[in-house]
Amino acid sequence: MEQRLSLVTLGSHDVKLAREFYEALGWRTTWTDDDVVFFQAGCMVVALWGRQKVAEDARVEDGGGWGGIALAYITRTAEEVDSVLAEAEAAGGTITRTGGETFYGGYSGVFLDLDGHAWEVAHNPNWTLGDDGSVTL
Amino acid sequence: MEQRLSLVTLGSHDVKLAREFYEALGWRTTWTDDDVVFFQAGCMVVALWGRQKVAEDARVEDGGGWGGIALAYITRTAEEVDSVLAEAEAAGGTITRTGGETFYGGYSGVFLDLDGHAWEVAHNPNWTLGDDGSVTL
Repeated sequence: MEQRLSLVTLGSHDVKLAREFYEALGWRTTWTDDDVVFFQAGCMVVALWGRQKVAEDARVEDGGGWGGIALAYITRTAEEVDSVLAEAEAAGGTITRTGGETFYGGYSGVFLDLDGHAWEVAHNPNWTLGDDGSVTL
Repeated sequence: MEQRLSLVTLGSHDVKLAREFYEALGWRTTWTDDDVVFFQAGCMVVALWGRQKVAEDARVEDGGGWGGIALAYITRTAEEVDSVLAEAEAAGGTITRTGGETFYGGYSGVFLDLDGHAWEVAHNPNWTLGDDGSVTL
């Protein structure tokens, strides 16, 4: 197995609303059949699909809550963290941690999307962000 | 917010065991302080960190179960799906769906890692996989 991740599928209670949320953040749908929504995201893909369908497809039990995965979006500047959090709140997301200094010398905050999926928005001065958005450790 | 995802953090009950699982699949740790483990994964990063720490960091309640996110790894051939599933089982993962034809003309199966995070392993003849592992819709 090569060291890469091709697709992250976010299970949603209402795919149409979830799509509107990400589009309100400025994302543009790359492909959809109105059942699943695919966003090309750099070298990989982020998808939205019915949460129950994702559970059935993976043959897992859905407890209904948070499941131990967090997503992160690395910004180019510390100021951008606050502006992305503000965008997310305006789009209907929930800020669970407002922007603040981190122990590693960065600046970050967290929003939840409409389905409770956690996104940390972080500026990390120790990580290299390419012009194309790629992150290199 | 640009259309990209920088980091996926998989919460783990035992980061050392989780690291050994991914290393048994052939992944190599890019950076660790023995608290968090980072794997460079193409244009982004996959991290392992204590599940309770991930929950606290994101200010979410951890219900202990599956939380509506599935990961996927796209293979170059259909045969590779079965070999990756076999690798995952040998490393201590759980196969929840054995390899089989999909409705979209591909071939896929699913394994869970030691913490129950679902990975679909799929060959999708309609998606373009670059030499560097990048996926383009």
